[in-house]
Amino acid sequence: MRDVSVVGIGQTKVKEHWSKSLRELATEAILGAMKDGHVDHADALYVGNMLSGELTAQENLGALIADEVGLRGIEAMKVEAACGSGGTALRVGYLAVASGQFDVVIVAGAEKLTESSNCNTTASLAMAADADYEGIHGISFVALNAMLMRRYMHEYDLVPEDFAMFSMNAHANAANNPYAMFQSPITLEQYKRARNVSDPINVMDSSPVGDGAAALILMPTASLNGNRARAIKIAASSVATDSLALHSRRDPLWLSAVELSAQKAYAQARVSPQDIDLFEVHDAFSIMSVMSLEASGFAGRGRGVNLARENEINPKGKLPISTMGGLKARGHPVGATGVYQAAEAVTQLRGEAGANQVPDAHVAMAQSLGGVAANAVTHIFTN
Amino acid sequence: MRDVSVVGIGQTKVKEHWSKSLRELATEAILGAMKDGHVDHADALYVGNMLSGELTAQENLGALIADEVGLRGIEAMKVEAACGSGGTALRVGYLAVASGQFDVVIVAGAEKLTESSNCNTTASLAMAADADYEGIHGISFVALNAMLMRRYMHEYDLVPEDFAMFSMNAHANAANNPYAMFQSPITLEQYKRARNVSDPINVMDSSPVGDGAAALILMPTASLNGNRARAIKIAASSVATDSLALHSRRDPLWLSAVELSAQKAYAQARVSPQDIDLFEVHDAFSIMSVMSLEASGFAGRGRGVNLARENEINPKGKLPISTMGGLKARGHPVGATGVYQAAEAVTQLRGEAGANQVPDAHVAMAQSLGGVAANAVTHIFTN
Repeated sequence: MRDVSVVGIGQTKVKEHWSKSLRELATEAILGAMKDGHVDHADALYVGNMLSGELTAQENLGALIADEVGLRGIEAMKVEAACGSGGTALRVGYLAVASGQFDVVIVAGAEKLTESSNCNTTASLAMAADADYEGIHGISFVALNAMLMRRYMHEYDLVPEDFAMFSMNAHANAANNPYAMFQSPITLEQYKRARNVSDPINVMDSSPVGDGAAALILMPTASLNGNRARAIKIAASSVATDSLALHSRRDPLWLSAVELSAQKAYAQARVSPQDIDLFEVHDAFSIMSVMSLEASGFAGRGRGVNLARENEINPKGKLPISTMGGLKARGHPVGATGVYQAAEAVTQLRGEAGANQVPDAHVAMAQSLGGVAANAVTHIFTN
Repeated sequence: MRDVSVVGIGQTKVKEHWSKSLRELATEAILGAMKDGHVDHADALYVGNMLSGELTAQENLGALIADEVGLRGIEAMKVEAACGSGGTALRVGYLAVASGQFDVVIVAGAEKLTESSNCNTTASLAMAADADYEGIHGISFVALNAMLMRRYMHEYDLVPEDFAMFSMNAHANAANNPYAMFQSPITLEQYKRARNVSDPINVMDSSPVGDGAAALILMPTASLNGNRARAIKIAASSVATDSLALHSRRDPLWLSAVELSAQKAYAQARVSPQDIDLFEVHDAFSIMSVMSLEASGFAGRGRGVNLARENEINPKGKLPISTMGGLKARGHPVGATGVYQAAEAVTQLRGEAGANQVPDAHVAMAQSLGGVAANAVTHIFTN
């Protein structure tokens, strides 16, 4: 397999984009990435998206967006793995370049959640869970996460404030990210006063519903001839799965797909958790950050909150996470999120993260989850 | 890139499966393919599906089905390109094996159209068209095809009966296919008497709504060591796109995605249309068969009906098409269809097509379309 590099990135701001359609958001991100990567053509487009059909009555996004960006004719398709769709689209783009099939590939993630012609957004997001055994009871996606957080707090004797730093770190970082949905820091007091969404998850534990798109340009590393100083190598790409339904898991407090996916990625990149300079974690809810840190090998069981409590997750800490705001404060346009994470990891490794720059960043990891980590996609990038 | 072969196939009967869920249908097909291919494990699963979210409130099908078949943990995802989803999933599976990443890959297509908890099936199928510029006017997918057929008949001075043989051939072939939805031949008289769906498309010009699943096992050709006599090689795999909206096309009567995709496939397989022994065409509507034959190079412009009128599309004719019943009579569970087509091409090249066997079949082509050929996926198989 050929080595693959990211040579261009593009992002739209995440917000309620009432004046832009899904295809317009995707186009803005893709044209930005093409400009950034100095390419004017591509062989293929892989689009990560979860809910375009349910919310905007549009499927076949691959061909639609390829046409909209002026690349009618090229190979294109949509890839879906719930909230992990963006990371999964990157996985397919990676395979297409690594295989030798294509030399210039666009990976895009695009999602429009705040405008719905058909269904309710909360009901649609629940389609990431098991419809026949979980969704049928009317449980929302946040409620599934709330059950895990409640059990986790009971098991490890924690209180909600133990999770506060995840949200505070994300908001502090987002304040310096022009693409972020929320650009103001929050205090511990604000976290404590935040209203409940699904007890014990409060609004500050939850990533917001937003619209956005991000894109990457991939090329074979060998073809760059050292001409592209800002190119960042994809050192590992892996996907692993778990049951959708929580009741089918031997241990609901352990994200085995995350563990499997991370271990495969470490092996491919020949690194260990200690080598990771920053980690774009899937912080859809604070509890997901905690459990992902554990299953990825950054913290022992029941100790996922420690790095946060010790203030080691900020850009200057031992393990910077959510360095540009994460899902929590950059925003979580579900199928686009995995591509935002990759673009942010690339930004860090290029040394272009401004006030949020992680010092001496050489190895970055991004992890995109679908469902309650029923699908885990891990990418490791190096400069 | 490594050569890739299909070593196992599995299919469920296409029908209104009121007693089986989507995951059960997919599992039946996958376990059948694994048994047929003598494999008890796989590295990855790629699922073609269009409407599981809209109709059954279930996304994240990749992980769901991997778990259901007993392969929890493996890489899995859903691939979507409207009615071309099945062919597109095969494309991703092909890349995963060709790249050297995986040695045993499952490609599945699964769709359940006759049971809907949320939306209307006809409205959902229209999501293959351009929602903002076509769907918004309330036009159905069959009506878009009807406009093309009307214009085509006007342009080339044809009458509906000129299209009859496509339907008659499909039904005659389906009569010998145990997996087909309709297992009885039809007469010209029945075609003429068939009620209109969207003038000039009658019910015999239209593929039916049905539920079903099909699956393939892919392995690197070199790993087979000549031990698998029934393995069939994938000689070409290609995807091309066009605008979704018909009004954006320079010439709506020419399927440029089909032409592009077919030409790429011929080049990869080093064959020309004359070398193709059978063609599993995307006969969602008779007019699509006609236009696909032309754009794929099997007939000149405006002459797509000739092969049918001359009775050369049956299994003993010059260019056998829809040899196991096609979308028209085997049935069209949209996201599964491309995988059924591939399984049928493999059946023919193995010499296991029974009464429908194409004599001396060595090169088979299968083509899966999404939207009104906004997405065209072509695979060529050889034995």
